[in-house]
Amino acid sequence: MTAGPASSVVTEEERLARVTLNRVVEPGHPGLLHRVATRGAVTVLRELSAGARIPEAADLAQRLAEADPTRDLEEGERHGLRFIVPGDREWPPGLDGLTSCPELHRRGGVPIGLWLRGCVSLAATVTRAGAVVGARSATSYGENVAGQIGHGLASAGWTVVSGAAYGIDQGAHRGALAAGGPTVAVLACGADKAYPKAHERLLDFIAESGVIVSEAPLGGAPTRIRFLARNRLIAALAAGTVVVEAAVRSGALNTASWTAGLGRVLMGVPGPVTSEPSSGVHQLIRERGAILVTRPEEVLEALAPVGEETLFPLRAETTARDRLTDLERQVLDAVPVHSAAGEENIGRVAGVSPSTVGRALKQLERVELIERLGGRWRLRRQADD
Amino acid sequence: MTAGPASSVVTEEERLARVTLNRVVEPGHPGLLHRVATRGAVTVLRELSAGARIPEAADLAQRLAEADPTRDLEEGERHGLRFIVPGDREWPPGLDGLTSCPELHRRGGVPIGLWLRGCVSLAATVTRAGAVVGARSATSYGENVAGQIGHGLASAGWTVVSGAAYGIDQGAHRGALAAGGPTVAVLACGADKAYPKAHERLLDFIAESGVIVSEAPLGGAPTRIRFLARNRLIAALAAGTVVVEAAVRSGALNTASWTAGLGRVLMGVPGPVTSEPSSGVHQLIRERGAILVTRPEEVLEALAPVGEETLFPLRAETTARDRLTDLERQVLDAVPVHSAAGEENIGRVAGVSPSTVGRALKQLERVELIERLGGRWRLRRQADD
Repeated sequence: MTAGPASSVVTEEERLARVTLNRVVEPGHPGLLHRVATRGAVTVLRELSAGARIPEAADLAQRLAEADPTRDLEEGERHGLRFIVPGDREWPPGLDGLTSCPELHRRGGVPIGLWLRGCVSLAATVTRAGAVVGARSATSYGENVAGQIGHGLASAGWTVVSGAAYGIDQGAHRGALAAGGPTVAVLACGADKAYPKAHERLLDFIAESGVIVSEAPLGGAPTRIRFLARNRLIAALAAGTVVVEAAVRSGALNTASWTAGLGRVLMGVPGPVTSEPSSGVHQLIRERGAILVTRPEEVLEALAPVGEETLFPLRAETTARDRLTDLERQVLDAVPVHSAAGEENIGRVAGVSPSTVGRALKQLERVELIERLGGRWRLRRQADD
Repeated sequence: MTAGPASSVVTEEERLARVTLNRVVEPGHPGLLHRVATRGAVTVLRELSAGARIPEAADLAQRLAEADPTRDLEEGERHGLRFIVPGDREWPPGLDGLTSCPELHRRGGVPIGLWLRGCVSLAATVTRAGAVVGARSATSYGENVAGQIGHGLASAGWTVVSGAAYGIDQGAHRGALAAGGPTVAVLACGADKAYPKAHERLLDFIAESGVIVSEAPLGGAPTRIRFLARNRLIAALAAGTVVVEAAVRSGALNTASWTAGLGRVLMGVPGPVTSEPSSGVHQLIRERGAILVTRPEEVLEALAPVGEETLFPLRAETTARDRLTDLERQVLDAVPVHSAAGEENIGRVAGVSPSTVGRALKQLERVELIERLGGRWRLRRQADD
């Protein structure tokens, strides 16, 4: 079989070397990924096979001996997966920024390659994408807001990127799917697996219109290190990240760090200060400069490239009251709520002369703020907080 | 009777002129207050008595004819009130900043004088003061948080300034009172009146240890204009203002404008994005640069003068897990949750050599992350979100 698409600039040897390295090196191994990005997978694989040692890969020799890239590609194909590498047309340019990113949490670098599942191009799907992440142990408030943001982004033609986890992630994916939009799920386990198992059907739905992405080898378990490596991909695939709920110690804050480190837009949804799952988000807004967002429109406003900006100001409607003169206001304040009062009485309370009060009352009646009851006046309705 | 305290630099004539002007001119009349501040009340009163006209005071001549400052002072005394003017020792210097403030909502200026009720010095009470304001139609969440912030400020020796209204205001006052701290209520009605009526007892409590303040004349009704004028005093009496809940059209946002205009610290407590009374606060944080605060400590941190700053970082405890090496983490990830696994199996899953895995497992047992069950290993507990 041919390993990659005909249109790619990547040689078959390089591609197979990357499939091998994907099998033997942990996702986001910063030193090794840097070496591969600068010198190519073929060279690095040759060095490793010749016995070069790298940190954090004790069993490398044995893993290398067992690796079989052609078998992996065939197995991937059986699962409906493809393997993409930098240089492929489907490779999202956003990932290349990971080279310049500081090593956060000891993971980093441009992935050696990614396993994908889904019928659309990853690069095309994430051209306009926003990540929505948060706590697994989310509240129903958080899940609902994640769903609304996912729905709003998808409705506006933006792709929702998340991690398919319980809580916020699934809320965001489901919101996007409900709006008929594509969504991208980046997994910490192999792209052929479902984690959590309960989201197997959700992942099937996601793959129908969007893309499932994984840097882990086929069959790989979702280890902690792979979650951390995965988080950087979520951040890098999107123009910005919204954190919906996140306790102070939450993986979502790791994604937030990557977002900030990559110079992408970091946003947070506030919640009750009495709610533990909102505390991490409040911290991001207080200490990390995250933009407070409350609605999909505000997320879009922050994500939209310059020139595409649309403003959705949250303004109270101008009321008849706003258009009053100070004098009319003063008179209005003197008009009683319940039992109507006469003109003279109102004038005295307002501190306004009789001739003036008459004109003001007529204007107030015209704009329907007061009503006349047999020559006396009272308020027509109450407003304001 | 003598109108003012012996220690004041203010002449009796000036004081009486101010009592008269307090009776005939609406609180916060920007033009007139500016004139009084620059030329003195005696001169301005003389001009007005000679027929000088000012905007927004149609009935001035009649009001002037009826005014009797000595009677007002005596009536005030009967209600346990005193009248203070700029120059008095009890005059809070913070109010003098109102001269330089832009005319927000057409109210402004240093008050001509203030009616006070309560046994402590206003100036001394607001030396370290924070305002806590918000919606009258608050949620129980908002009232509780206002109470907690009021309690926290008072416990730290700070005075809580608010408006004695329903909702957030009363929550803040009650919180401060519960902590045994003084609190200052600024009213839109006369200082001899209780508004709302239901807060008559609350106001009595406030006057016992704190101060009730009003710029309105004795017996004055709480009109809309007086609320707006009142809001600037709340902002000016405090080093900063916390808005707890405020719908988009809320008087609390007027206080927030004054706070920002005076260069004081503006803070907002977030809430659910689905809660209308939190929407105005979110807007303040998004658009007006209000500092998001979630706890009294954070309010104090923002209010404390430089040099007094105390930091209360919200940090998760460092756990044993944080101190692991990458290799130990990798091994830990491979240790099963429920049924224990052998060393060889764990090493294979982790991708680590047998000799290395043994050392790592011993270290993990030492820090109590895993436990041994008949030569096999499993996690001792689960952590994290």
